Amino acid sequence: MQPSQSDLARLLRIDGDIRVDFIESPALHGNALGDLSLRPVVTYLPPGYDASGSRRYAVLYCLHGYTGDAAALVAARPWETNVFQWADRLIADRTMPPVLVTVVDGFTRLGGSQYVNSIHNGDYATYTVRDVVGHVDSNYRTIPNEGGRAVFGKSSGGFGSLHLAMTEPGTFSAMASHSGDAYFTYAHPPSFPSVHRTLEKHGWDIGSFVAHFESRPKREPQEYQTIEMLGYAAAYSPRSASAFDVQLPVERKTGRLDEDVFARWRAYDPAEVCLSKRTELERLRLRYLDCGRRDEYGLDIGARVLAERIRDFGLSVHHEEFDDDHRNVGYRYAVSLPLLANVLEKE
Amino acid sequence: MQPSQSDLARLLRIDGDIRVDFIESPALHGNALGDLSLRPVVTYLPPGYDASGSRRYAVLYCLHGYTGDAAALVAARPWETNVFQWADRLIADRTMPPVLVTVVDGFTRLGGSQYVNSIHNGDYATYTVRDVVGHVDSNYRTIPNEGGRAVFGKSSGGFGSLHLAMTEPGTFSAMASHSGDAYFTYAHPPSFPSVHRTLEKHGWDIGSFVAHFESRPKREPQEYQTIEMLGYAAAYSPRSASAFDVQLPVERKTGRLDEDVFARWRAYDPAEVCLSKRTELERLRLRYLDCGRRDEYGLDIGARVLAERIRDFGLSVHHEEFDDDHRNVGYRYAVSLPLLANVLEKE
Amino acid sequence: MQPSQSDLARLLRIDGDIRVDFIESPALHGNALGDLSLRPVVTYLPPGYDASGSRRYAVLYCLHGYTGDAAALVAARPWETNVFQWADRLIADRTMPPVLVTVVDGFTRLGGSQYVNSIHNGDYATYTVRDVVGHVDSNYRTIPNEGGRAVFGKSSGGFGSLHLAMTEPGTFSAMASHSGDAYFTYAHPPSFPSVHRTLEKHGWDIGSFVAHFESRPKREPQEYQTIEMLGYAAAYSPRSASAFDVQLPVERKTGRLDEDVFARWRAYDPAEVCLSKRTELERLRLRYLDCGRRDEYGLDIGARVLAERIRDFGLSVHHEEFDDDHRNVGYRYAVSLPLLANVLEKE
Amino acid sequence: MQPSQSDLARLLRIDGDIRVDFIESPALHGNALGDLSLRPVVTYLPPGYDASGSRRYAVLYCLHGYTGDAAALVAARPWETNVFQWADRLIADRTMPPVLVTVVDGFTRLGGSQYVNSIHNGDYATYTVRDVVGHVDSNYRTIPNEGGRAVFGKSSGGFGSLHLAMTEPGTFSAMASHSGDAYFTYAHPPSFPSVHRTLEKHGWDIGSFVAHFESRPKREPQEYQTIEMLGYAAAYSPRSASAFDVQLPVERKTGRLDEDVFARWRAYDPAEVCLSKRTELERLRLRYLDCGRRDEYGLDIGARVLAERIRDFGLSVHHEEFDDDHRNVGYRYAVSLPLLANVLEKE
Repeated sequence: MQPSQSDLARLLRIDGDIRVDFIESPALHGNALGDLSLRPVVTYLPPGYDASGSRRYAVLYCLHGYTGDAAALVAARPWETNVFQWADRLIADRTMPPVLVTVVDGFTRLGGSQYVNSIHNGDYATYTVRDVVGHVDSNYRTIPNEGGRAVFGKSSGGFGSLHLAMTEPGTFSAMASHSGDAYFTYAHPPSFPSVHRTLEKHGWDIGSFVAHFESRPKREPQEYQTIEMLGYAAAYSPRSASAFDVQLPVERKTGRLDEDVFARWRAYDPAEVCLSKRTELERLRLRYLDCGRRDEYGLDIGARVLAERIRDFGLSVHHEEFDDDHRNVGYRYAVSLPLLANVLEKE
Repeated sequence: MQPSQSDLARLLRIDGDIRVDFIESPALHGNALGDLSLRPVVTYLPPGYDASGSRRYAVLYCLHGYTGDAAALVAARPWETNVFQWADRLIADRTMPPVLVTVVDGFTRLGGSQYVNSIHNGDYATYTVRDVVGHVDSNYRTIPNEGGRAVFGKSSGGFGSLHLAMTEPGTFSAMASHSGDAYFTYAHPPSFPSVHRTLEKHGWDIGSFVAHFESRPKREPQEYQTIEMLGYAAAYSPRSASAFDVQLPVERKTGRLDEDVFARWRAYDPAEVCLSKRTELERLRLRYLDCGRRDEYGLDIGARVLAERIRDFGLSVHHEEFDDDHRNVGYRYAVSLPLLANVLEKE
Repeated sequence: MQPSQSDLARLLRIDGDIRVDFIESPALHGNALGDLSLRPVVTYLPPGYDASGSRRYAVLYCLHGYTGDAAALVAARPWETNVFQWADRLIADRTMPPVLVTVVDGFTRLGGSQYVNSIHNGDYATYTVRDVVGHVDSNYRTIPNEGGRAVFGKSSGGFGSLHLAMTEPGTFSAMASHSGDAYFTYAHPPSFPSVHRTLEKHGWDIGSFVAHFESRPKREPQEYQTIEMLGYAAAYSPRSASAFDVQLPVERKTGRLDEDVFARWRAYDPAEVCLSKRTELERLRLRYLDCGRRDEYGLDIGARVLAERIRDFGLSVHHEEFDDDHRNVGYRYAVSLPLLANVLEKE
Repeated sequence: MQPSQSDLARLLRIDGDIRVDFIESPALHGNALGDLSLRPVVTYLPPGYDASGSRRYAVLYCLHGYTGDAAALVAARPWETNVFQWADRLIADRTMPPVLVTVVDGFTRLGGSQYVNSIHNGDYATYTVRDVVGHVDSNYRTIPNEGGRAVFGKSSGGFGSLHLAMTEPGTFSAMASHSGDAYFTYAHPPSFPSVHRTLEKHGWDIGSFVAHFESRPKREPQEYQTIEMLGYAAAYSPRSASAFDVQLPVERKTGRLDEDVFARWRAYDPAEVCLSKRTELERLRLRYLDCGRRDEYGLDIGARVLAERIRDFGLSVHHEEFDDDHRNVGYRYAVSLPLLANVLEKE
C-alpha cells in the first residue's frame, strides 16, 4: 500500500488508485423520481498513472446491473474479486495494458435506469455518454475519442452496453455484455403475474407500493420482482414525467400481457434493436457477448439470438457460453477486459 | 370396513367401494409412443350402490394431472385426502348426493396426453368421451346422458376438463377446472430455455433423451421440464405418427420461440379456444374455475382471462381464487364436488 | 395381465400378485393415540406361487419410513418403481429367487411408530414379529422360521430393521437398512429448535398442535418437523399411556437440549444399541447398510459408525455409499433385495 | 455533502464522516495463515466532531460476522442501511447522542477469527482490545476508558462481543449481540457431515482444500460450510502454530462427533462461558441480546439460554426476539445502538 492511495484503493488492496468524483448531471435534472442529479463517478487509475505526465490511457466504462449502483460495485467483498481488482490484477500480470476503468452510477429509486433516456427517469443514456464521459475526458489523461473507449457490464449493465453501443454511436468503439438482458420474450413475462398480484394488493397505487417497499427492512421475492418490472416500465414505457406514471405490460383486470405496452419494451430489446443497427454494430472493433448456460432469465438464448443476427450482417462476434447461472459471474471480466483493452487505441 | 369391499377401498378406509376395470380402447390403438391401449378405469361407488338395484347415479369424471395416472390418483397417502376419500366424506355428511366418481387414465410415455386427440399419441379425447364413458354407462347404474355427467380435474386435468367441455359438447353438462392450464403465454415459455439446453445436450435426438430419462433413477428439474414440454408438443403440435416426431416451439439453433409452432399450442389454450365456443359453454349447467393466487405457472391469470371471456358472453362462471400455489390443492374438491354433483340430474 | 390378479397387482402391471389382509393386532390394542389395531398386511406373491401347492418361500418383510404407511408404499407412481415392482422385475430376470414380500403397516397418528414397543403407541415391535409374521406364516406358504425371513426398509424402515434384528433375535436371519436412522447426535437435534418454536406457539399443548396439524390442508415445514419429533418422542420417550403424554428432548423455557430425555432416545440409536448386541448381530446371515453420501440427516455418518462397530466385533457388514441424498432411493432395492433373498433358505 | 468528507462518507451519503486508518498489529504478527498484520480500522465520526476541539465521545466498537470484513461491512448497498448509515440517522434524529463507531477487521483466510486469541490465527482478542482500541483512543477524541466504550455485532460479531465482554473485562462497559453464536450444541454439529464429506474428497489435506476453495470463482454450499468449520477450529481448537494444523470435531474415519475436540469448542460457547463470568457480566451497564425466532442456526435458543443464565445471576438482560431469520437483520441496530450509546459516559 502506498500512503498516497485513497481509502477505497487501500481497502481493496490494489496497486492502482481510485478516484471518486461527484458530477452534477444536467441530463438527470428534474427527473420524476426525485433521484439526485449529483452522481458519483468512480474511476480506477492504473499504477504509473500520472495526472501531470504526458501519457494518455484508454477508458473502459463499466455499467452496473439492476439493483446495483456505483458504490456497491466497487465495494470489496471477502473471497470475491471486483471489477477494479480484476483490472488491477490483469494489468499487473500484463494480460492487458494499463487502462482506466470508470464505473457509471445508473441507480434510480426503482432500482435502475437501464441507461436509457426516459421522460420519467431522466436521460441516462445522455448522462452516460455526455456527462460522465465528458467529465472523465476533462479530468483524466484519457484518449478522448471513440477509439479510446469501451463500455461493458453485467446483466442490466450488459443491456446498457448494448443499448449505448447501438444507439449512441461514436462514443465507444468496443462493447462487452455479460449475461446482458436480451430477448425479452423469455426474460420478463415470467415476472408479470407477480406484478399483477402485488400491485392488486396495493390497489394499483404504485406510489403506495414503492413507499411500502422502501420502508420495509426485508421484502418478499415477489416485491423485488414487482419493483424490477416497475423499473423497466419507467425506462421503456413511461407515460409522463409525473412520478410513477408508467405503463405496465400487464392488463389490470386479469393480469394478461398487454401486447401494446410490451411492444414498447421490445423496442428496447437488443435482440430486436440490432436488426436495424448494422451500421452502428459494424463500427465497433469488438462485439463481445457471453452468458451462463443456466441463466435463470434465459439470457443465454438472448445472447444466441443476438450473436446470430450480428453474424447474419457478416460481422464477427465474440460469443461464449459457460456452465453457470446468472449470479456472481464477475470472473468473466478476466476474459472480457483484456479483449476490450487490447482493441482500444494505445499511446 | 365391509368384507365385501375391494382392497383399494379398504386401504382408503372409505364407506363406499372401488372398482378397477381394464378396457381396451380403440382410440389409443397403435399410438406412436407404444403406450398400452388397455387402460384402467377406476370407479368409486357410493354406499348403497346396488348393481342389481334400480337406482341410477350421476357420474363425475376425474382427469388427473400431468405426470399422474389413474393408479397414482387413487392411492392413499397418510395425512392426505384423495378424490375418492373426499367424495366419500362429502356424501357421508350429506354435503352432496351419492354419485359415482370415475378416474380416467390419460398417462403417456411423455407424461400425459392432455386428453386431446393427437396423430402421435392417440385420440385421448375420443378415448375419454367414447371409450371410458361408454364403458361406465354400460357397466354401472349411471344416468347415461349429458345431464348425468360432469368432468373435473386439477392442472392438466383442469385443462382436459375445459378442453372436453368445449370440444366434445353433449358428453358433460358441468365442468370444474382446478388450477387448470390456461393462458399459455405465461404458463409454458419459462420452460423453453430448459428444453433447448437439455435437447442440445442430447443432439436433438428426442428418443435418446427419453430413453435417458426413463433409465435414470433420479432426474434433474430441467429434465422434468423438458419431458413435460415434449408431452405438450406430442399433444398440441405433433408432426406425424412416428415416435417422437413432434414440433417444438423452440428454434433449434438459438432457442428462441418458434411462433408458428407456439401458435399450434395456443390453438389449444382454453383462454383462446373459449372465444369461439360460446354455444358449447352456454350448454353447461356449471362452469367452475379456481386457482391459487400464487400459482407458479401464472394459471391464476389464465383463470381470470377465461372467467372474463365467459362472462363477456353473458354467461355465469363460478370463479374462486385462494391463497396457495399449484401443489396439493386437492382440498379444493370440497368446494367443487358438491357444486358439480348438485347441478347434475338425480333420480 | 391375468384376470385372476388383484386390482393392485394389475394397476402395478406386475407378473406376480398382491394380497391385502387385515389383521387385528393384540399388541396395538388400546393404544393412547387411538390408532386402529386392525391393520393391513400387504403381501407380494411371486409368479408361480400356489396356495395349494407344496413349494414354500422365504419372506422379505418391508418396513416403510416415517410419514409412510403400507398403502402408500405399495401404490404405483408413474416413472417410479416401487418395492413390489422391483421384486417382480428382479425375480423375472432371475437376479433373485422367487420370494414373498410383505409390507408391515407401522403408521401412527404422529406419523410413525419406529417399530418399537411403546407404552404410549402400542407395541409395534411385538406387532411386527408376532402378529404380522404369525399371520403370514399361518396364511401363506412360507418357510416359517428365522432362516426364511429377512427384514429391510428405508429411513425409519431401515431403523426398524436394525431395531428388530438386534432386539428381537430369532425372527429374521438377514437385515438391510437403506438410509436408516442411526447416530441420533446428528440426525435429530437440528429439528429441535423448530419443535420449541412450534409448540410454544401452541402453549405446549401437544393435543392442540396435533389437532391443528390434522385439520390443515397444508402445513409448514416446521410443523412437519415438529410432528416428526413428537412421533419419535412417543416411541422413544413416552411418559405414560395417556394420549400425547410424552417427554420431549427440548427444555421448555429455553429450548435447549434436555440431555436426560435425549439419553432415552439414544438408548434406541442403532449406533449405540449395537455395542451390546454382538450376539444378535452375529446371528444374522447378512448385515446390509447403505446411505447416500449427501443424506440431509447425516445418516451416512450413522451407517459408517454402525459398520465400523459391527466390524470391530469381527463380523462382516455389507456397507455401501452412493452419491445421492435421502429422498427417493428406492432404486437401492435392486442391490439389497437379491442379497437378502439369496442368503435365505430356499426349498 | 461536504467537500471535506471522505469518499466513503460521500458514497454513503451520510452527514458524518469516515476515517480509514491502517494499523500494524503486534498481536497478529507472524500468524500461521499468513494474514496481514496491517489492518484497516474504519471509524465513523459524527457531525460536529472536531479533531482539534475539546469535546470527547464515546465509541461503539462494531464486530463484523463470519465471511465479513471491515471493508464489506461499511460498503453501501442500494435499498439497505449499513451500520454507519444507521448511526448517522439515529444521531440526526436525536434518538441517540453523537458517538464514534469503529469497525474492527477480524477476517482471516479461513473466513473469520471469532475475535479470540489463537496460537494458530493470532491473538484477535488482544488485537481488538489493545491494538484497535489503543489506536482509536490515541488518534480520536474519545472518552478513553471502559465507561466510554461498548462492543456489538451480528452473528460471529455478536459472539465476539460476548467473548470480549466476558474475557477481557475493563475494556467495554456495554455489549450487544445480534443473533450471536451461542449454544454450539445446536449451531455447529449440523455442518459436521459436510466437513467430513468435503475433506474426505480432499484426502484430509486442509491446505489443499483451502487452495481449491480460494481458486474457484464459485463454491458449493458444503464447501462454505467446511471452510466455516475450519475457521472455528482454527479459533477454538488449534493444534499448533503451523498453517492449517487444527483439530476438527469430526472423527476422520466415520465422521462422528469427536467429543474431546467439541469440548474445546464448547469452552468458547457463550452459553457455557457465562456460567463462570458473573463478575465480568455484572460489570456491564448493558447486556443486550436479540435473535430472530426463525434463526437457521438455532441461535434464538442460544440467546434464551444466555438470558436465563444471566438472569439467574440476579442480573438484568435486555433480551428481544423477533420474527425473522439469520440474514440481513441490520435493522436491529435501530434498537441496540441507542441503548448502547445512552448507557455510555457522555461529556
